[in-house]
Amino acid sequence: MRIDIITVVPELLKSPFEASIMQRSIAKGLVEVQFHNLRDYTDTKYKQVDDYQFGGGAGMVMQIEPIDKCISKLKSERDYDEVIYMTPDGETLDQGMANTLSLKGNIIILCGHYKGVDQRVRDHFITKEISIGDYVLSGGELGALILCDAVIRLIPGVLGNETSALTDSFQDGLLAPPIYTRPADYKGWKVPEILTSGNTPKVEEWREEQAYLRTKERRPDLLEG
Amino acid sequence: MRIDIITVVPELLKSPFEASIMQRSIAKGLVEVQFHNLRDYTDTKYKQVDDYQFGGGAGMVMQIEPIDKCISKLKSERDYDEVIYMTPDGETLDQGMANTLSLKGNIIILCGHYKGVDQRVRDHFITKEISIGDYVLSGGELGALILCDAVIRLIPGVLGNETSALTDSFQDGLLAPPIYTRPADYKGWKVPEILTSGNTPKVEEWREEQAYLRTKERRPDLLEG
Repeated sequence: MRIDIITVVPELLKSPFEASIMQRSIAKGLVEVQFHNLRDYTDTKYKQVDDYQFGGGAGMVMQIEPIDKCISKLKSERDYDEVIYMTPDGETLDQGMANTLSLKGNIIILCGHYKGVDQRVRDHFITKEISIGDYVLSGGELGALILCDAVIRLIPGVLGNETSALTDSFQDGLLAPPIYTRPADYKGWKVPEILTSGNTPKVEEWREEQAYLRTKERRPDLLEG
Repeated sequence: MRIDIITVVPELLKSPFEASIMQRSIAKGLVEVQFHNLRDYTDTKYKQVDDYQFGGGAGMVMQIEPIDKCISKLKSERDYDEVIYMTPDGETLDQGMANTLSLKGNIIILCGHYKGVDQRVRDHFITKEISIGDYVLSGGELGALILCDAVIRLIPGVLGNETSALTDSFQDGLLAPPIYTRPADYKGWKVPEILTSGNTPKVEEWREEQAYLRTKERRPDLLEG
């Protein structure tokens, strides 16, 4: 899988791709991630890529021309399955969407910054608009990080143990059950006895029950679906 | 505001706090962010902070002792309004929660990694569990980044223009209307005439209508609330 990220602040994206799962997936050659600085696609004196809103109002808007140039150059080099724009009014990311995207070959992710991009970019170049949740961030870069991490960890071979992702919250429509590790007794706080019983079928039964109870208590909406 | 982030991969968090809005808010002294490496709170030979799950199963679990030590040390130094754990089964972050948290003084954010933390940490030390959305990430660090950015940008003085945050999506329960900037005509794609009319009341009317229409089309659930 290849992911091209278009941004005005590539330096913001650096460290998360150099640590943990994302770093390892890149090192293993399972995914290639390239950053593209939008300022490399403008000829203006101060490398400006934004301007005031038509109609007035606070906040700068990212201009169409540098974005057009960058996306057109990438598209001339290879085919893309999706050109994604991260925006709070996009379709809300969920585990199902992450699963689907993890099967794609090449994707472009455009990060809005400031007030967002000129609407004509969205109308003419974007194939999918994604929101990571109902809150506003200072830019699409953090959303792109979330999307990349959620998708990349699902690519086969990325996680050391394949079953690890399958027992996560949401993969079976339920939240994950409580988990415990050593010591069995910490300051008098003990782990549930069943977990140290060695009775595997009973442990599995307990976990399923706990996952159901936790989902019912915290997210009954997941059970309706 | 002071934010203490407890993590096993502090290097992952670095670059987003050194760029854009978060960097500027720290430089202005409006917020202080400290990373705490959980491995500094263990005496074990290999600085291990995780262990196998009781009851078996894939994925490592973060142990209670180093987390207890780190949180207890921080609490001995100052009072905290919230000790937050980032987890996919937490309460889902939205703009209202970001607004509330932006008024707090000191908060701790504990990032789970691997399979998550021992349930006893959640039972005894955590005051609030937050999810950024219905998907699984490789660690709580990216969730912590999202939470910090969503909250920090709302602190008065962080954004250059105070009205910028107030016209964002979700602040008034609606998605934001389309935005446009120069040029007015790009390859034949024109901006709506109303926006270049100079008629401010009509522009505002158009924007309100567009915000409503976009919300009705994309997120009718927001209108029900």
